[in-house]
Amino acid sequence: MVKVNENFVKLPASYLFVEIANKVNAFQQKNPEKEILRLGIGDVTRPLVKPVVDAMKQAADEMGQAETFRGYGPEAGYAFLRETIAAHDYQNLGISADEIFVSDGAKSDTGSIGDIFGLDNTVAVCDPVYPVYVDTNVMAGRAGDFTEGKGWSKIVYMPCLEENYFLPALPETVPDLIYLCFPNNPSGVSMPKSQLQMWVNYANEHGSVILYDAAYEAFVVTPGVPHSIFECEGAKTCAIEFRSFSKTAGFTGTRCAFTVIPKELKADGVSLNRLWDRRQSTKMNGVSYPVQRAAEAVYSSEGQKLVRENIAYYQNNARIILEGLKKAGFTVYGGVDSPYVWMKVPQGMTSWQFFDELLTKCAVVGTPGSGFGLHGEGFFRLTSFNTKENTEKAVQRIVEQFK
Amino acid sequence: MVKVNENFVKLPASYLFVEIANKVNAFQQKNPEKEILRLGIGDVTRPLVKPVVDAMKQAADEMGQAETFRGYGPEAGYAFLRETIAAHDYQNLGISADEIFVSDGAKSDTGSIGDIFGLDNTVAVCDPVYPVYVDTNVMAGRAGDFTEGKGWSKIVYMPCLEENYFLPALPETVPDLIYLCFPNNPSGVSMPKSQLQMWVNYANEHGSVILYDAAYEAFVVTPGVPHSIFECEGAKTCAIEFRSFSKTAGFTGTRCAFTVIPKELKADGVSLNRLWDRRQSTKMNGVSYPVQRAAEAVYSSEGQKLVRENIAYYQNNARIILEGLKKAGFTVYGGVDSPYVWMKVPQGMTSWQFFDELLTKCAVVGTPGSGFGLHGEGFFRLTSFNTKENTEKAVQRIVEQFK
Repeated sequence: MVKVNENFVKLPASYLFVEIANKVNAFQQKNPEKEILRLGIGDVTRPLVKPVVDAMKQAADEMGQAETFRGYGPEAGYAFLRETIAAHDYQNLGISADEIFVSDGAKSDTGSIGDIFGLDNTVAVCDPVYPVYVDTNVMAGRAGDFTEGKGWSKIVYMPCLEENYFLPALPETVPDLIYLCFPNNPSGVSMPKSQLQMWVNYANEHGSVILYDAAYEAFVVTPGVPHSIFECEGAKTCAIEFRSFSKTAGFTGTRCAFTVIPKELKADGVSLNRLWDRRQSTKMNGVSYPVQRAAEAVYSSEGQKLVRENIAYYQNNARIILEGLKKAGFTVYGGVDSPYVWMKVPQGMTSWQFFDELLTKCAVVGTPGSGFGLHGEGFFRLTSFNTKENTEKAVQRIVEQFK
Repeated sequence: MVKVNENFVKLPASYLFVEIANKVNAFQQKNPEKEILRLGIGDVTRPLVKPVVDAMKQAADEMGQAETFRGYGPEAGYAFLRETIAAHDYQNLGISADEIFVSDGAKSDTGSIGDIFGLDNTVAVCDPVYPVYVDTNVMAGRAGDFTEGKGWSKIVYMPCLEENYFLPALPETVPDLIYLCFPNNPSGVSMPKSQLQMWVNYANEHGSVILYDAAYEAFVVTPGVPHSIFECEGAKTCAIEFRSFSKTAGFTGTRCAFTVIPKELKADGVSLNRLWDRRQSTKMNGVSYPVQRAAEAVYSSEGQKLVRENIAYYQNNARIILEGLKKAGFTVYGGVDSPYVWMKVPQGMTSWQFFDELLTKCAVVGTPGSGFGLHGEGFFRLTSFNTKENTEKAVQRIVEQFK
């Protein structure tokens, strides 16, 4: 008699953004005339830039001709893309093409990286945190049991609070796997290189592995904030880095990302680069060829110029939110090296109460901080991915309602 | 101190097709003048048909315009594709769009389906078998330990032999999860509906789940051979079906597939449709929008006409191999409802010896049967995915060498 994976049954049935979508849909149905402004989910809105579209179309044409048709590609990605990434993003960091694994998304990679680690490793996450790190460890059986108001029994939560400027302290009980995401989702704060270096030292000292999600690195503007964990000395023996074209080049619907595993990185004397290679070549067949050509075009000089313009557009939106809310007396964080603004909810409200108020009174959608973890309570995430016009309108509505 | 997943370490370091590629490369380097004919890996060669290319290009253009740009899509696939699949492939089988999960490949889905099942389930596979079913269960820890000449201690092997026309017998010890692939890879034989119905009855009787890989269903021509396991009565309470556009429409480099999990299918009273939905929405972000539009175009009337022509081309190649080898006195199986021909190697040779002979004397590449499992020994897989000219040439070379 077949048995299900019981860990799945422990998971709450619905995913945060599904819950939000349901509330928003219900509101829209009751108020069909209201223009809802969505600053909730972290999804881009600017179209793909022309060199990317052209590259995808040209590759589609190649696939339609016998002479240039391509079947199965290398599971870890075509050399043309891996080499371009290495040369462009890791030029001075000594990362080579065969340390880069192309995939269909950072969610896939951060969600599946656990496959190569034993089930008895302890896992540490920031609190609040991107739910995928926790949920996938629940599925694997590393999380223990859930208690309302406490969280998962085996997960080491690292509180990210106003007091520590949302940068976690080194845990006293040493975890084996440490998920870090900077610039951070949801808080939008970034971690200076000097502080990230402490984490690298800590991981090397204790034999931990840092799973570093750098999905938002393209938004970094502050001097001294690293784009890659491999800017830190010693990171190659303790870190895996996840990057994505989603926020960098608007690929949320196009799907391309990559994961960097240095060859120096070992656990139990075993190369994690080799294990991930085995995992990927057994469980997937590589990314669509036209999508890989599209990703390559992001690095062309015209591609770079245009994606930087899009990022600047979102950065300007973040500034509009930050400055507008600050001026009106709100306490806000993040939004400088990140598309996310982390707003303190007005006193006396929970973050879900504020969500409801904002939706029903302003028709503005954000994400309640408590959806990201216990210590997200009292905060609210706003994203800069809408249009400039809608962003301005949303800020104006919030300020007028809550001033 | 971080621990690796020890099950990974148990796996043989290299994958069958990597080993073959290495041998072929070494031969080509020594003999640069030889024209090698590849009938080894099961990869298509005919280009994408025009409606598919056009749909992908149009979708790429949509992604380049703000008004038509798409960000994150639904993880399980866009309704336009799920509904088209349901209407076209499952019209009379009562499968609805929300029982269809679009993905980037059947390898991803057959490789990851184990996520939703407990680790204590017993697994049965055909022998010989597509290596992914076994390797992914090794990784998860369901396979036990490996002994040379015996296989994995906890896997139930179901021998597919000349004596049973390569159709396995119902296992005496009841397994929880049963992988079946028909038309079969590697043997190329198909299973009549009456016989598949016995498996469905067996699974329902014992509470087992059949993981049915129908990647080659588009090649079925024999009356009474099912395209889908859901043609069998009762399959909705015991089966998951995997399908792919790879062999149907030449998508090996374009990447799109889907998995069908009926809502009736439960284990421990839990809906497997719901569990897979949770798995997919937590561990991936859907398939590239232009790729989903490309897949949709496969079902247009012009798309159907043209992909059927490509399949007919491969089917003709299979006939060339079958008839050519039969005429020369070889014993051959499969190749009718399948792009694969399963050839008995000349007496006194192992399948790897025959591989080496064929490579060095004929410059023809096939796949040694023993690479697919113990009971593949003595057989050899030839594929019909090369050009007609190369297929004819390869058969001629084999016949001349071994007649």
